[in-house]
Amino acid sequence: MSRVFNFSAGPAVLPEPVLRQAADEMLDWQGTGMSVMEMSHRGKEFISIHAEAEANFRELMDIPSSYKVLFMQGGAIGENAIVPMNLIGRTGRADYVLTGDWSKKSAKEAATYGQVHVAATAAASKFTAVPSQSEWKLDPGAAYVHICSNETIGGVQFHWTPDTGSVPLVADMSSDILSRRIDVRKYGLIYAGAQKNMGPSGLTMVIVREDLLGHALAITPSAFNYQLQAEADSMYNTPPTYAIYVAGLVFRHVKKMGGLAAMEAHNLAKANVLYDFLETSSFYRNPIAKEDRSLMNVPFWLNDESHNDAFLKGAEQRGMLQLKGHRSVGGMRASIYNAMPIEGVQALVQYMKEFESRHG
Amino acid sequence: MSRVFNFSAGPAVLPEPVLRQAADEMLDWQGTGMSVMEMSHRGKEFISIHAEAEANFRELMDIPSSYKVLFMQGGAIGENAIVPMNLIGRTGRADYVLTGDWSKKSAKEAATYGQVHVAATAAASKFTAVPSQSEWKLDPGAAYVHICSNETIGGVQFHWTPDTGSVPLVADMSSDILSRRIDVRKYGLIYAGAQKNMGPSGLTMVIVREDLLGHALAITPSAFNYQLQAEADSMYNTPPTYAIYVAGLVFRHVKKMGGLAAMEAHNLAKANVLYDFLETSSFYRNPIAKEDRSLMNVPFWLNDESHNDAFLKGAEQRGMLQLKGHRSVGGMRASIYNAMPIEGVQALVQYMKEFESRHG
Repeated sequence: MSRVFNFSAGPAVLPEPVLRQAADEMLDWQGTGMSVMEMSHRGKEFISIHAEAEANFRELMDIPSSYKVLFMQGGAIGENAIVPMNLIGRTGRADYVLTGDWSKKSAKEAATYGQVHVAATAAASKFTAVPSQSEWKLDPGAAYVHICSNETIGGVQFHWTPDTGSVPLVADMSSDILSRRIDVRKYGLIYAGAQKNMGPSGLTMVIVREDLLGHALAITPSAFNYQLQAEADSMYNTPPTYAIYVAGLVFRHVKKMGGLAAMEAHNLAKANVLYDFLETSSFYRNPIAKEDRSLMNVPFWLNDESHNDAFLKGAEQRGMLQLKGHRSVGGMRASIYNAMPIEGVQALVQYMKEFESRHG
Repeated sequence: MSRVFNFSAGPAVLPEPVLRQAADEMLDWQGTGMSVMEMSHRGKEFISIHAEAEANFRELMDIPSSYKVLFMQGGAIGENAIVPMNLIGRTGRADYVLTGDWSKKSAKEAATYGQVHVAATAAASKFTAVPSQSEWKLDPGAAYVHICSNETIGGVQFHWTPDTGSVPLVADMSSDILSRRIDVRKYGLIYAGAQKNMGPSGLTMVIVREDLLGHALAITPSAFNYQLQAEADSMYNTPPTYAIYVAGLVFRHVKKMGGLAAMEAHNLAKANVLYDFLETSSFYRNPIAKEDRSLMNVPFWLNDESHNDAFLKGAEQRGMLQLKGHRSVGGMRASIYNAMPIEGVQALVQYMKEFESRHG
């Protein structure tokens, strides 16, 4: 089969040139006679791969030198515990803003490690909108304020940066990192699983302001202690070397494509194709407030759900895969990360129109 | 450059047919039009990869159905905390046997989560021998007894299985798993980072007897809670999918090569080539007690260390890489895992003889 349009929410589509290079170099990385998978993480070859990946990531995200970049393991669900273990100890309590399933999960896990206060929740809108900051009740004594910048299941995204004053803002950016420009200086800590816009699952990127290090609870495992990892250049334990290599190829590719400004324009154009169509349709619906719609994950429902199986089957026959919605909410979901070309979204909308005209 | 003889202690050499297949399938796994890296972990394609990997691993290791197999993240250093978090709560204390740097590190980390008792230590022999069980002082009230079956740095290996009665035996088998037959029934829990005999770094295999589940301390992160992972088929969080795929290819390859009995014979033959030579040489030395010598990691020292750089340079020119000893002990180290062919060890010994005759 030729390559398909892969709408998976993660692990997700990667740029084809990245996969081609990884395949080409699999048995012999740049004349070393070794696969990257076979290299000691402390050898000069892998150290150069790691250093280039970090440098390109810093350049893409414009990360100031007062922030550490860590390559870790455990994904965002791991970070749900690792963040409070490392940060909550400063004051013993933290604010969480709930905009969907992922931020709710984060808040629940954090309560094991300190006092969690819900500063705002989108419950009233049934998690179809980001609560406006005027409604937030922030605790000035919180160790941090946690948000999820893009809710992968609900399809709700922050299109503005909260102002949390002197309290550090912490963001789970798993599903929108590298998809648009952001001002890292407005955050104390950003974390993201790699498996949407960066590379294979099993790698977690953490960007942390240096002054937040050094407050880990005593029960923090050494492998997940930000300070120990920062001091060891993310090699306190053996890092996920091959995943770092692939992420490094992705970073290089994104730079070549024009960086995050170009990604942002590309992602906005793609999302508009889909949302513009959804707005005109009475066969499909997306309930998210217009100003909070995600540019990465577009959940939609057929008004008549008895057509769901036929819709998915027809999509698959046309080479459009993994459109089934998250098992907790049903319906459909088109995840349209950086590596999804606009042609994929156009093909999807074309198919949706055809399906509507046949079944509507 | 053609493929080299790679003596890295880990990440380490992998079987060439595995790398070839991974390269061939990189852009299109079995006609799906997707890379394994791009597949949802909940899709039927990845679920089949995961299931086959687990089935082959169970068959190779002869794992009874009363044990769970978990695919986790964080490596053995992560497990240094994750094991006590999950197991020590049953009685609040655990026995550790110290045979080198790795078991010392495990004991140190565990002390954060409960009372750690050193049941035996190889300190008297300067960690060149496994203390005989007659010297062990086991605590019948321990939640478990922890050993490291093979010390990657020191080159000391257990060639017998301790009898810990009704107290579960826990083993860090990171550097010798799949290298020989073992009786899983004699263990309560086995863990191993994948990056020596199984695949890329970033994957940790855990084999745990079911009755040991359910005792996790309250502060255990959900992503690292064995019971939650067991209930979720290792998908409580997104698993390191590509690393699982490669490990699955390795498992299939090891089966094809004749399984663990064949690996054991192959590894014994390889190690003998090197140890037999070391015994006859007065130019090189290996201080480990003969009956406790590792079949996986062979540290050796030049009696005149001023030749170290020349030795490594000459080896590299002959395509023998990553022979430098661990930074904490210096000297040389030949790691000769499953995927190292006997030709590699023969070439190394040939070179060692030549070097000795030039400089001895």
